[in-house]
Amino acid sequence: MTQATSWLAIPADSDFSFQNLPYGIFSTAASEEKRVGVAIGTWIIDLAEAARLGLFHDWEARYAEAKLVFRQITLNAFIALGAAAHQALRQRLRQLLTEPEAGLRAGAEEVLVEQAAATLHLPVQIGDYTDFYSSQEHATNVGKLFRPDNPLLPNWKYLPVAYHGRASSIVVSGTPIRRPWGQVLSGEATVPVFEPTQALDFELELGFIIGKESRLGVPVPAAEAENYIFGLVLFNDWSARDIQRWEYQPLGPFLSKNFASSISPWVVPLAALEPFRVPGPVQDPAPLPYLQTTGALNFDLQLTVEIITSQSTPAVVTRTNARYLYWNIRQQVAHHTVTGCNLRVGDLLATGTISGGEGPDAHGCLLELTEGGRKPLQLPTGAARTYLLDGDEVVMRGWARTENSRVGFGEVRGKIVPSAYENP
Amino acid sequence: MTQATSWLAIPADSDFSFQNLPYGIFSTAASEEKRVGVAIGTWIIDLAEAARLGLFHDWEARYAEAKLVFRQITLNAFIALGAAAHQALRQRLRQLLTEPEAGLRAGAEEVLVEQAAATLHLPVQIGDYTDFYSSQEHATNVGKLFRPDNPLLPNWKYLPVAYHGRASSIVVSGTPIRRPWGQVLSGEATVPVFEPTQALDFELELGFIIGKESRLGVPVPAAEAENYIFGLVLFNDWSARDIQRWEYQPLGPFLSKNFASSISPWVVPLAALEPFRVPGPVQDPAPLPYLQTTGALNFDLQLTVEIITSQSTPAVVTRTNARYLYWNIRQQVAHHTVTGCNLRVGDLLATGTISGGEGPDAHGCLLELTEGGRKPLQLPTGAARTYLLDGDEVVMRGWARTENSRVGFGEVRGKIVPSAYENP
Repeated sequence: MTQATSWLAIPADSDFSFQNLPYGIFSTAASEEKRVGVAIGTWIIDLAEAARLGLFHDWEARYAEAKLVFRQITLNAFIALGAAAHQALRQRLRQLLTEPEAGLRAGAEEVLVEQAAATLHLPVQIGDYTDFYSSQEHATNVGKLFRPDNPLLPNWKYLPVAYHGRASSIVVSGTPIRRPWGQVLSGEATVPVFEPTQALDFELELGFIIGKESRLGVPVPAAEAENYIFGLVLFNDWSARDIQRWEYQPLGPFLSKNFASSISPWVVPLAALEPFRVPGPVQDPAPLPYLQTTGALNFDLQLTVEIITSQSTPAVVTRTNARYLYWNIRQQVAHHTVTGCNLRVGDLLATGTISGGEGPDAHGCLLELTEGGRKPLQLPTGAARTYLLDGDEVVMRGWARTENSRVGFGEVRGKIVPSAYENP
Repeated sequence: MTQATSWLAIPADSDFSFQNLPYGIFSTAASEEKRVGVAIGTWIIDLAEAARLGLFHDWEARYAEAKLVFRQITLNAFIALGAAAHQALRQRLRQLLTEPEAGLRAGAEEVLVEQAAATLHLPVQIGDYTDFYSSQEHATNVGKLFRPDNPLLPNWKYLPVAYHGRASSIVVSGTPIRRPWGQVLSGEATVPVFEPTQALDFELELGFIIGKESRLGVPVPAAEAENYIFGLVLFNDWSARDIQRWEYQPLGPFLSKNFASSISPWVVPLAALEPFRVPGPVQDPAPLPYLQTTGALNFDLQLTVEIITSQSTPAVVTRTNARYLYWNIRQQVAHHTVTGCNLRVGDLLATGTISGGEGPDAHGCLLELTEGGRKPLQLPTGAARTYLLDGDEVVMRGWARTENSRVGFGEVRGKIVPSAYENP
């Protein structure tokens, strides 16, 4: 296949290749208004400015609601235009990037912004956030710690277990993460104490952004589910394991995860990941009919987690791949809506922690990597961690690779800062 | 105390007395635009129209963002104005209702709309919805059914247990409720079946609408928590018990509650409920310091649930009172935010099912009333119910009463309709 290439120089190792074209919200010191951009190499295409220059004139004429969608503080209005509009804009962007005479090159000074000079913001106004639990390796490893006799519960292989998460505290990559206080029951105690968590963990996840409303009362069949997906993000669902252990029965995690989750600033369109589809694990027992899917529905996305501390050399502690996920996105959407629950543009469906692979580092959270805090993780130059300390920074990365280019998410980064208040 | 009275005739048994003045969103056949109204007796005060006539001129001049807040499809913009603006508007409404020369009487034909002629809509755009589990009677009764040996878990008296709920499927009173399908594990089976729920239940709850943003990372102390509450609603958190039993471990209820919750169209301001404060139950053991509160923090609100079927006379099956709730709203807000989780205007915090009181009908859901479906509920004229059948209608009511008047929520009503689709 001949690869179309751009007149714009794109570094070969960039996550933001010509095949990617992810969407985000950005601002600059010179122009503080938030607006929609597309990442390409080390640049951002300022779509609001490009529209002002008339580069999307034909596209705007075709979609009634398209006017001003790029001058919004979130992607929601753009997402709501629908798949045909997204596909047409993607084609136009490829044309602008390959045909120097199409107008982008002439307007480059106004339209191209250096990523290094931009501030990235939360890309989507998230309505509801649902977190699945779709990695068999993760569910088994965690189950062993919380329920040694009964790690994978009987329902796990019949339905994609999930719970509702907190949307208000989802923050963009780079936002500092404040160590939460909470109730903890220590050792043999019968009365909890109130203290800053001593078991602050990351969770490596992918998230799917809903691109189309579904109607209340009307399930979305698995075969149609991907029509409801706009794109993917990388996601860190920070967790306080000691708080979780004490609070989670019988209604699930609440405070142990409501203090913050971090999202990548760039939303990668589903179209960019088409070349990287792979079959998921064999599902045995066979799912019930409404959950049955066929074909290559997982994504071959390499995922890493790096920990940066002041006492060690930055170290990649997790290496895994999204291909290991047991339940795929079609099954998650079909299950979520089978009761008639409606989806809205901007909802987030996350995979749950992703683990899987061969190495000792094939675990997507410290709970697994340290076997529940019993086996400290050795970092280069002698430092060790069970859970995260104040000042530690966690950097997640995710990408797919072809011979010619990468399609990736950039980073999701968050640094732990001390709790700002005293015990009341 | 001399009771101020209105020149407008208000039926003595109306929930919407001069002391109440709840807010909602309505439209009429003559004017289909959604707008803000206040219920009074059998009328709605059309605040958008009243503003157009200049009746809020001084009030609008004092609050910079007040212009056009009544011409919105939800209350959120009005709520975001803050407590001082709400208090001032409430004073002005009382003036308009007591002083015939103040202008409302002269404009009555334009401003007063008969409730019977109005359509009521979802009052608030709900960001995040949190459901607590704050009735000890309910938690104990349900715990016995799901975990006979261990009904009230050890954490229950130390923290207000809660989980995140689904916001997208919250609907206004009167919306039909479609029976959901889901996975159910029957009797001794080891493999689930997919079928319409056979255990569709109601849950009688109150909800608190958040009126003020809190900052991410900054807990709200219990003593300040009520500053973050705009008002209260009556709430039915429909549940499918058979789906719940199979899915809820280990992350809590998901599909069993995501298909619909019903909310009252009227939001009763906290100020209207001040005369009805009562102390809650004694809390033993004493809560941890961040959860300690003193004073009369519960509300003496009588609550009923009526079931209407085609085979029986309408029958009140539940009679209880909000005063029995173990955890109060200050404790719920303090707990929710103690990690730094932020609240946003329009978030909903619900109490969980309310049970408590002397009678056999002091239970807020069928799961309790029928002891898990084992003891059918006898309805007048011979019909019986374990769980709800298609065509059944559930009507919840809630009110407080003084010698002179009632302050109430009106109704939350929902009728069960059959599932609209076939097993795929």
